[in-house]
Order: sequence, then C-alpha cells, then structure tokens
Amino acid sequence: MSKEVNPDLVKERKACTFNVTELVHIIDGGEQATKERKEVEEMVLQIKDIRDKVPEEYLSHKERYENAVRKTVLMVEVLKEHALRHSSFDAYKPSNMYRIQSGIVKDISPFMLHMGMFVPTIFGQASPEQMSEWLPKALSLQIVGTYAQTELGHGTFLRGLETTATYDPKTEEFIINSPTITSYKWWPGGLAQTANHCIVVAQLYSKGQCYGVHPFFVQIRDLETHVPLPGVKVGEIGPKLGFQTANNGFLGFQNFRIPRNCMLMKNSQVLKDGTYVKSKSDKLTYGTMVLIRVMIVADAAYEIGRAATIAVRYSAVRHQSKPKPDQPEPQIIDYVTQQHKLFIAIATSHAFRITGTWLWDTYSKVVADLGQGKLDQLPELHAIACCLKAVCSRDASACVEQCRLACGGHGFMLSSNLPIIYGLVTATVTYEGEYTVMMLQTARYLVKAWKQAVDGTALTPTVAYLLNYLNNSGRKWDNTPEGIIAGFQAVAAGKIKEAYEAIQRHQKEGHDYEDSWNLASVQLVNASDAHCRAILCEVFFTEVQKLSSTISAPLALVLQQLAELYLTYWTLEKGGDLLVHSSITKNDLVWQRQRYEQLLAVIRPNAVGLVDSFDVRDEILNSTLGAYDGRVYERLFEEAMKSPLNQEPVNSSFHKYIKPFIEKSKL
Amino acid sequence: MSKEVNPDLVKERKACTFNVTELVHIIDGGEQATKERKEVEEMVLQIKDIRDKVPEEYLSHKERYENAVRKTVLMVEVLKEHALRHSSFDAYKPSNMYRIQSGIVKDISPFMLHMGMFVPTIFGQASPEQMSEWLPKALSLQIVGTYAQTELGHGTFLRGLETTATYDPKTEEFIINSPTITSYKWWPGGLAQTANHCIVVAQLYSKGQCYGVHPFFVQIRDLETHVPLPGVKVGEIGPKLGFQTANNGFLGFQNFRIPRNCMLMKNSQVLKDGTYVKSKSDKLTYGTMVLIRVMIVADAAYEIGRAATIAVRYSAVRHQSKPKPDQPEPQIIDYVTQQHKLFIAIATSHAFRITGTWLWDTYSKVVADLGQGKLDQLPELHAIACCLKAVCSRDASACVEQCRLACGGHGFMLSSNLPIIYGLVTATVTYEGEYTVMMLQTARYLVKAWKQAVDGTALTPTVAYLLNYLNNSGRKWDNTPEGIIAGFQAVAAGKIKEAYEAIQRHQKEGHDYEDSWNLASVQLVNASDAHCRAILCEVFFTEVQKLSSTISAPLALVLQQLAELYLTYWTLEKGGDLLVHSSITKNDLVWQRQRYEQLLAVIRPNAVGLVDSFDVRDEILNSTLGAYDGRVYERLFEEAMKSPLNQEPVNSSFHKYIKPFIEKSKL
Repeated sequence: MSKEVNPDLVKERKACTFNVTELVHIIDGGEQATKERKEVEEMVLQIKDIRDKVPEEYLSHKERYENAVRKTVLMVEVLKEHALRHSSFDAYKPSNMYRIQSGIVKDISPFMLHMGMFVPTIFGQASPEQMSEWLPKALSLQIVGTYAQTELGHGTFLRGLETTATYDPKTEEFIINSPTITSYKWWPGGLAQTANHCIVVAQLYSKGQCYGVHPFFVQIRDLETHVPLPGVKVGEIGPKLGFQTANNGFLGFQNFRIPRNCMLMKNSQVLKDGTYVKSKSDKLTYGTMVLIRVMIVADAAYEIGRAATIAVRYSAVRHQSKPKPDQPEPQIIDYVTQQHKLFIAIATSHAFRITGTWLWDTYSKVVADLGQGKLDQLPELHAIACCLKAVCSRDASACVEQCRLACGGHGFMLSSNLPIIYGLVTATVTYEGEYTVMMLQTARYLVKAWKQAVDGTALTPTVAYLLNYLNNSGRKWDNTPEGIIAGFQAVAAGKIKEAYEAIQRHQKEGHDYEDSWNLASVQLVNASDAHCRAILCEVFFTEVQKLSSTISAPLALVLQQLAELYLTYWTLEKGGDLLVHSSITKNDLVWQRQRYEQLLAVIRPNAVGLVDSFDVRDEILNSTLGAYDGRVYERLFEEAMKSPLNQEPVNSSFHKYIKPFIEKSKL
Repeated sequence: MSKEVNPDLVKERKACTFNVTELVHIIDGGEQATKERKEVEEMVLQIKDIRDKVPEEYLSHKERYENAVRKTVLMVEVLKEHALRHSSFDAYKPSNMYRIQSGIVKDISPFMLHMGMFVPTIFGQASPEQMSEWLPKALSLQIVGTYAQTELGHGTFLRGLETTATYDPKTEEFIINSPTITSYKWWPGGLAQTANHCIVVAQLYSKGQCYGVHPFFVQIRDLETHVPLPGVKVGEIGPKLGFQTANNGFLGFQNFRIPRNCMLMKNSQVLKDGTYVKSKSDKLTYGTMVLIRVMIVADAAYEIGRAATIAVRYSAVRHQSKPKPDQPEPQIIDYVTQQHKLFIAIATSHAFRITGTWLWDTYSKVVADLGQGKLDQLPELHAIACCLKAVCSRDASACVEQCRLACGGHGFMLSSNLPIIYGLVTATVTYEGEYTVMMLQTARYLVKAWKQAVDGTALTPTVAYLLNYLNNSGRKWDNTPEGIIAGFQAVAAGKIKEAYEAIQRHQKEGHDYEDSWNLASVQLVNASDAHCRAILCEVFFTEVQKLSSTISAPLALVLQQLAELYLTYWTLEKGGDLLVHSSITKNDLVWQRQRYEQLLAVIRPNAVGLVDSFDVRDEILNSTLGAYDGRVYERLFEEAMKSPLNQEPVNSSFHKYIKPFIEKSKL
C-alpha cells in the first residue's frame, strides 16, 4: 500500500487560492502563538510510549482509565515547566497551545478539572493567604484537585444544592455532610479515583442560619496511601456517551471536618466566632463561570474545525456514484448537497473563534473594571455569555454530527474520531449551565431591556437594536450583509416583544408572573436564540471586515466569503422568522438561495486549504478519515487490524457457545 | 433505600384520563399481539444467566463480544421454536414481539443480520430448489449467515461495487475476487467472527461480459473448526459509535470458488454453459430493500417510544429550581420548555408507528400484485419508502437526542440507556440507503410527477396534490388539521416546482441535465422532505380519525390531541415554508402557537400514562432513569457501584504513576 499523499488531495492543495500559513497564524492568534503551539506539540509527541499500540477503545473501562492516567502523567511532566511559564490570568485566554492533550487522551484526561476548574477557582475565590498556600502546590501538582458542585439531584440550579457545611466555633471547623442520596456530589471529573483534593460547594450554616452556597477547599484522600479519608465516600459514576476516561466521580460526606480557613474567603468570610461577613457583591463569584463559558465557545470553534477537517478531506478522497455514464465517479465534495453540509461547518468554526475572542476581550475589560469596583457591565456580560455558551455548544453539536453523517458509514467508526468529538461537544450543551436554563437567563435580561426600551431608558450596546425596532427606525431589508444583520436584529426584537406580550397576556388571564413566564418560555428561548444569532452574525461579519484590511487580499476575500456564507445560510434557515419580523420578501429569499449556491461554488476550490489551515496534526486529529495524506482506506484497514479480535483466527466463543448450539440444532 | 414506586409517578398515574391497557393493545397491534409479546418476554427473562452482573459497557471490546454471543445463543435456543411457528412472510410485519432482544444484548446481537437480512434474502431471491436446501438450515441456525454488500469504498451506490464473481464453465463454478482494497466487504454485522456463511453481492462476469451486481450464497468458514476457508480474509472492523457487539466485519476473496448453483437464481440465472438469463424485471430485487426500509420506520417508532419513556418518567420524578420562593421545586415536566421537548417525541412515535403500518399494508399489496406480474405501483412505493426511511430515521435521531438532553447530565450516562438508543437510531440514517441519496431518489420521482402534472398525465395517489397546486384549486389555509395537511401539500408542490425550475434554469445557463440536477440538489432534498412531511401528517391524522370511531372516547381524544400536536408542531417549525407556499398568514401562525401551547397543557396530565402505554419492560428499557418505579437516584447509584473501579479503594495507577510523579514534584 502506497504511503504517498492521495492524488486528489495533492490536486486540491494546488488549487487553493490563498496562503494557508497566513490563515494558520490568524487562527492561532499570531505567528508567535503558532510557534509556541508547535513547540508544545513536539515536546509531547517525542515522549516515549505516549502513543497507544492498541487503540484505547478496545480496552476495558478500567484499563482505559489506567492508561489515561499513565499517559497524562507522562505528558504533564513534560508540559509542567512550559505551563508554569504561562500561568498568569492570560493563560486562560482561549488558545490552541495545549490541544495536543486531546490527541493523547482522546476522551478527556482524568486531570482535566485540575487545571480547568480547581486552579481557576483558587485564583478567583481564595484569599491572598489561601492562594499563597494552595496555589504553588496545585500548580506543581503536589496536590491533585477537582471541582465538586453538581449533585445527584441538583444541577444548574445552584441554590438547590443540599451538601451542608456547618460551622462549629468550638473547634473552629466546618462539618460537611451529605444528608440525602440526592445530595451526593455527582459528575466532577477526576473525582472518582484521581484527585486527593476538591473544591466542594456547600450550603454554609453558621449560628443556626443558612447563608447559601459557598466553596470549600477539601482534602478527600490520604496523600500517602490515597485511601479515602474517614467520613468520605467516593467512587466513579460509570461509563458515559463520552468522557470515558474523565474519571467522573461521586462524593458523600458524613460529619467530615475541615478547618475554618478551608472556606474560600476572597469574597465572603466566616470569622472565628462564626460571624458571617457577606461579600460585597454576590456577582463576584460569577467570574469563574463566565470564564468557563468563554472557553466553551472557543472549544466549540476548535472541535468544529477538527470535525470539518476530517469530513472535508474524506469528501475530497471519497468517490461515489456515476451521474454521467462516460465519466468516473466524482469526488463526493463535488456534490452540492455535500458542500451544503460541510462548508457551513468551516464558516461556523471561524464565527465561533472570532466571537470567542471578542467575548474574551469583553470579559477581560469587565474583569478589569470589577477590580475598580465597577459592576454595571456584569449583567450584560452574563447575558451574552449565557446565550453564546448555549447556542455555540448546540450549533457545534449539530455541525459535528453533520460532518459525521457526511462521512457515511465510516463516520460511525470510532477510528474516524468523529463519534468521540461528538461526545465531547454534546456534553457542553449540558455542563456549566444547561442549554434551556442558559437561554432563559439571557431572556430575563432581554425582557428587562425591552421594558427599558419601552420606557425610553438607555440601553446597553448589545440590545441597542431594540430601540430601532420600537421606533420603526431600523434599516429595511436589503440583500447585503449589513441588511441581513439588521434583519436578524429585527427578528430578535420582534420575538422579544412577542414573548413579553405573551407574559402580559397570561398575567391578564390571571396567572402570576412566574407562571406566565413559564407559559411563555418556549417563546422566550426562541427570543434568546434570535438575539444570539444577531450577535454572532454581527460580530463575525464586523470582525472579518476589520481583519480584512490587515491581511493579504486573497485571504481577505476567502474570509469574507465565509462570513457571507454564514449570514446567507442563516437567512435561509430562518426565512420564516425574517418574513414575519423583517421586511424581507419571498423574492429576496429566492435571491439569497441563489447567492448561497454561488458561495458554495466559490468556496469549493479552497475547501481543503481551509481545513488545512486549522492545522490540526494527525496525532491530534486521531482520524483514519482525516489524516493529511488522505490514505483513508489503508488507515481504516490498519486500525481495524489492531483489534484484539483480529489476533486469532477463531474466537473462543465459537467453541464455547456457537458450536454446541449448532450441534444440538442438527439433532 | 425505599423500593416503593416514586410518589410523583403514583400521582401521575392516578391522573391519567384514559385506559392504558387499551392503548397498549393498539400499539402492539391487538390484544393477541400483546399476549404473544409478553409470552416471549417471559420466556427469555426466565433464562438463567441471561442478565449481566457487570454491565457490558465495563468490559473490553473482545469480552463484550463474547458475552453477546453467549447471551444470544441462550436466547435463540429458547426463542427458536417460537420463531419457527411464526416464520411466514407475515413474520416480517413490524411488531414488538422480539424487542426483548434489545434488552438482553443492548447494543445489537452479532446474529442480527442472520434473521434480519440473510434469511429474507434467501426468501426473496433464491429459487425454490435453493430455498428448500438452504432455508431449513438457516432457520434452524445450523448455518449462521449475514449479508455482505457494502464495500470499503462503495456504499449506497450499488453499481460501484468491485467484488467480482466470474463464471468458469469448465468447472461450473464462480471465482470470487476482491481486486482492490476498496473492494473489501466492510460493515456486515456478524461477519467478523460469527457467521460461517454470507450472501455476497458481486459483479457477475460470464463469457467476458459484466452483467452487474448479483447475490451469491457463500460459505466462508469451516463448519467444524470455524477457521476461515482458504482464499477468504475475514475479520472485524473495530469499535463504533454504537453496535459495539454487532461484530461488523470485513471480507476479501482471492480466487475463491463456489458452485454455480450458489448464485441466487430466483430472478436472473447463469446456465451451465455460462449463458446469462436476465430477470423479468430489475425491480424485483428491490423487494428486500423496501422491506428493510419499512422495518426502519417501525423501529424508529419503537426507539422514540423507549427514549420518551425514559425522559418523561425522569421528568416526572426530577425536581429542579424554585420559581416561587414559598413553594417546593417543581417537577421538571411542569416546565413548558420541557413539555415542548418531550411531547413531540410521544406524538412522533405514534405518527411513525401508524405510518409504518400503513407502509407495510401498501407494501403487502404491491408484493401481492407483483406476484400477478403487475409492476406499475413499484416506483411509487419505492419513492415513498425512500423518503420515509430517510426522514423517519433522521427525525428519530433528533427526538432521541432531545429526550437525552432533556434529562440533563444524567442523560449522558450509559446507564440511562439513551446514548445507546441514539447509537442504534442514528445508524439508521446511513445504513440501508444514506439519507441524502434516499431523498434524491424520491426527488427523481417527484420531478417526474411534476412533469406529468404539467403535461396533464394522471398522477399516482401520493402525488395527486400536485394538480391542485398547479390548478390553484387546492384548499386555502385554515387552522384545522385538514387545512394544515393541505398547507403542507402546497409547500411540497411549491418546492417541487421551484426545484424543477432551478434545474431548467441551470440547463439554460448551459449545464447538462446531471450538473443542473446537482446544482439544484439542495432544493431537491428540501422538496422530498416537504413531500414526506405532507405524507406523515396526512397518514397520521387520517388513520387516527379512522381509529377513533373504534375505540373508547377518552383514548380517541388523547390520540387526536397527539395528532394535532404533531401537525401544529410542524406548522410552527415550517412556518417560513408555509408563508412562502401556502395562504397562511402571520396571524395564523400566532394562532397556531397558542393552540400548540394549549395542546401541551392538555397532554401534560396524560404524559406518564402515554409512555406507560409503550409498555416497555424495565428489562428492555435498561435505564436507571426510566424504570417503572421511578427510583432514579437509587438506580443511578446501584449501577455505579457495579463499576470494577469501585471494587477497590485505591486504583493501582496511583502507586504506579501518580505517586511517583508527586514525589518528584516535591523535590
């Protein structure tokens, strides 16, 4: 079997009209960022025994976990120094630098929440003294931590948590308890067998009064023996749709005591005598949550990029059907239905990356202002982060599944890596804030903004469009990107208005406000969705326009085509909403459809170049279908031959079960 | 922990307004069918060792296969006699009788294709002599077979298959070869290590001429030793998103000889001297394919029913959030957003079951006519089966995922069984005819029908609505079910017309017909989709109306509500299309939205009763979240405690990897 690059891919790469390296740098966030990323990749990939000989999917659940620990420890050791050099606030800026990890432990490292949640929570919520004690140990991994918030019976609704931390002034300790089965912590990654510490979020009681949920720094296993401490019940929750090696755990406490100073005291405090000192603002603790939501948007962009890389390369190599008897079977990427499935994924990855960066910048500014005591921008940031987290995770799931299905049966194989990527992405729809709950949080903000608009109060920038709608002073529909953006703003405004009026109608029917809210909630979710789409369209298009003046003309053209594709795609998807709420006509929709088909055609020659620009190394892509060389069928075969079932001509189950059965049948 | 039924479920069941048993019989296809189903379930469940002590997801890939063989053999032995009593053509009528299998081997038995494809192909395509030789052995499982059609490089496009069967008149044998890597058979269930025979679909060559693809009956393993025969290369293809225990295999041949009478000769034949005798109709071989597509529609209904059962029961038990400070956390099923996610799944299951039965009846009539030499209804049947297979499998995937996501994080757990159900359902989008290819096959029929309508030629029943549209004589929009159905027909007709005109436009621009078809193909798929939705709405509504006069009034009311919910849901989903192609107004859409919300409210009290009526035993549901007793949290815990990782306080990886690493960190 040839080891050469598939000739179809060679041909595609020759036809590309822009400089792939230029786009690689943009995606990474600059030439220097690309350089650092590649250094990290090299560092990890040269580690001995870091790659599996037998793919992990063949192992038992337990073996798979053990193998993930083995590889992660190897990797962390090598990356530690590098990571320490980058451990400032800026380290949380979305980047591709450590994506190599998803190539080494395909289905999540059991240490993920250590750096992903444990350390950031200490950063964000520990007092300076606590930080100086815990952070060095955490950063050097002398202690392994995780973040235990969700309980078996309680998810996104934080106030419902049941775990209690009751202050005992006599010993100056908190006593932690899990009073019911539903109060057991459930889900934290690494909690089961890996971590020896965790942040536990519990209802704080002092002097007989409940002060709501607060975070505590809790050791759960002996540092020497790793045996769970007395009063701690900890274990794993079992296999899942994805995250098989994340080692998600459960955790219960029975009269488990921790020192007073294990409560994270940057914001609220409990004094020695049990006096509770309230935080200056409840909102300050939102910081970490918003940060994670920013990262989810960036992760969505990355995973869509991986999926698109696999599906586009496969579609360039795969030939199917024979529409013309005298010609060979075409590459399937030449079918317009296939382009329709794939190119929106490429565009969406760019849209989310750019919006994620924009959100990060917004977040950084708000955090800087928080330092100055300015809290007024927090509600708007929170509202944007909620709907973007929700919509981007859901859209990403849809894009990844569409890429998978576009690869036909082969996309169903784990060796394509598409099912594993789907497992990672679809999880984000739920974790860190369930989709519908997030959308309704944004909706609360939007309803408030609508009231302000009606009252003539000034509006924050992301909802300023409501005034245009109210005054009927918005831009009328025209078939330009700006026209489309205005159209989506009109849809959002129209839906917010309708949802608001639905609440009022239900109130007039005699329902109280919360019941009326519930009765209107499907519309409220739709309104959030429309608002979010308007933001995505505007940010993507505007940022691409800005970028275009700073890059080469051929690349600027391609990025503009992607932005326009994104806008046009959603115009067609939301044609009904636009017909109801904007001044678009049926003829405009016909025009948009033709424009959409033109865009597919102009993007087609650059499709492979565009996914090459995501620059995901084969070792991170982990895909038989998506490797750079396009040796799709050879790789499928080579991977299959690693199956333990293929190491023997006859499986033992024949002699044990099948043959005796057949013998009996003959009688 | 209590073993009693959760009080929320007790309350829900008391509130149900209809007789659950009455609906159970309807879903099964009659009281007798329910009785037989329950007999089969009892028979299987009393088998010793048929239930796993450690859930199969914890095993290695190889162990999991071996366990699946073990359990399937136990089950087949018990079911054999029962199955033989029911082995007529009618045995393929969609039924729930053998659904127990999906409870025993959660992720597909390696023997599935034996009864699912191997036997039906012999039934459909073997000559009477061949049938009398092979069928008794196959039915008694003296030989284990599968169906090998798809190749590594060739899927839905049958003519592209590369495997060759070349007739050698000297020895009166066919020589089978796999000339390239892409010609290897790839995917057949049970092929890898389980089957000793298979139907191989290969390009038939005789006297130097190719006669296209034909099926051959091929022994691939020694019956005594199970060792692959010389010239046969066979093995497994590796893990997948689902079907982990299906034992999907690859298969290649090198100059492998089989006797002439191993070609299935009901239709075409090769005589001793190599003369090829053509089938009376190419279309006759479509039979099995259509049959499988009918079954996919019925399976979709069943799997949506399973997913809805899990999600609805969980939603009745789960409490979350506290909209009113003075009241307890409500059941999440009382959130309208949750009802919006779940009730459409219940309605869709009924829609698909009823449409599947209708399709089966249509199919049976066409097959009976085929026996009389009448072939004229075959194209219409083929066109309906294609789009129904495609749309029902895709909608089912969406419903199952929506049910999973509606269960929040817990839906992500394999112990909920929702991820496994998704794996089963999403596979059907691709297998037995890839989604887009199927849609385009229906579109070919629709375009032809449109031309006939324009020419004034008589139309077949399922496309008769085209004439109304053409003559502008269709029913105008009104907010009744009949009005909605007419509206969907107008959408379908409008889209078919537009797609047809797009093809013509592209031809005028200078493209040939096939290129023009490709350029219009996104619109063509949309047209098929609209056609299919019109059929689903009409058949569901009409059949429920017919049924209503024969059942109790309370149940008739509930089924009518579900049918109306289905119609209203899709009216809102496709509002844009209706605005463009029907006479619906914006105000009608507002009315429909309010009606939709009313329907959610009236269905709410019956939600648990409705899923109880799917009557899926706990052992088949296999779900911690969905069991009849609603002991959700207890079951989640009990299942987790079965994890091998939870059998020891400290996992070996701590001492092997983590501790040495921490020690080094401290230095």
